[in-house]
Amino acid sequence: MFVLGVDPGLSRCGYGLVRREGRQLTAEAAGVIRTDPSDALAKRLADLQYDIRTLIEEQKPDEIAVERVLFQVNAKTAMQTSHASGVIMAEGAASGCPVTLYSPNEVKSAVAGWGGAGKDQIEAMVQTLLKIDSPLRPVDAADAVAIALCHLAMLPGRHKAVAG
Amino acid sequence: MFVLGVDPGLSRCGYGLVRREGRQLTAEAAGVIRTDPSDALAKRLADLQYDIRTLIEEQKPDEIAVERVLFQVNAKTAMQTSHASGVIMAEGAASGCPVTLYSPNEVKSAVAGWGGAGKDQIEAMVQTLLKIDSPLRPVDAADAVAIALCHLAMLPGRHKAVAG
Repeated sequence: MFVLGVDPGLSRCGYGLVRREGRQLTAEAAGVIRTDPSDALAKRLADLQYDIRTLIEEQKPDEIAVERVLFQVNAKTAMQTSHASGVIMAEGAASGCPVTLYSPNEVKSAVAGWGGAGKDQIEAMVQTLLKIDSPLRPVDAADAVAIALCHLAMLPGRHKAVAG
Repeated sequence: MFVLGVDPGLSRCGYGLVRREGRQLTAEAAGVIRTDPSDALAKRLADLQYDIRTLIEEQKPDEIAVERVLFQVNAKTAMQTSHASGVIMAEGAASGCPVTLYSPNEVKSAVAGWGGAGKDQIEAMVQTLLKIDSPLRPVDAADAVAIALCHLAMLPGRHKAVAG
């Protein structure tokens, strides 16, 4: 099972590709898609659409997990993130992949064991699950890997994300 | 000048294509793209993406005008509309068309002369501008035509939308 996790955003959209084989979890790629804030909104969304489509075509994930956008204090940011998320979900479904949404709390619960976990706890748990020596960077890419790990933990016949 | 106006929505997305030749304004096509509320969100967005892309390819507008999504009382509806709007803007820009956003008040001001105009006043003004005998239906299509008329009124060397 090969999962693409996406942390949607217009200026910075994190992505992480995690493969599960048996009990082995491997992050095969992770990064951030950026769009130019000096471009018009529609142009930025078209650029994001192109980049996410290219990523899906190249990496061929089995399934896609996207973090759900919640209403934020900053209405403009929430709206932009919501536009970006719409583009990502449309591209995901158009590629034929099942697309699943998870709230930030669901991701935290699945990866760190409780919904109130802090960023540093999530990062440490991602590091432990992937058996890597240093925290994943940039942070948006690490968040996207956590979303992919959440989806793998939620799937039937799942590898339990939390030991014990 | 041939303008596609779009009133974004996930369940019902209105569109209207208006051509201006000299002082003549003609609505060449108008309608509503619907997605199935029983489908998953990502599937609905992919369906909308496909339909709007097909519409742009078939009709070949010169420019696209989209109504800006405002925060509404119903957060879920605002979020869905915002996802849909993101898909539409991305497709518009990817097609090479300039994409311009207008707030509902800008549309009302341009078409009916003031931002507080009611639905019926907008409909009557659309009817007058297009010199048609009965109001355009369905309402979402009429709203989209109003958005296209707003854009034509805003363009340099514009036909004044309001007589006098």
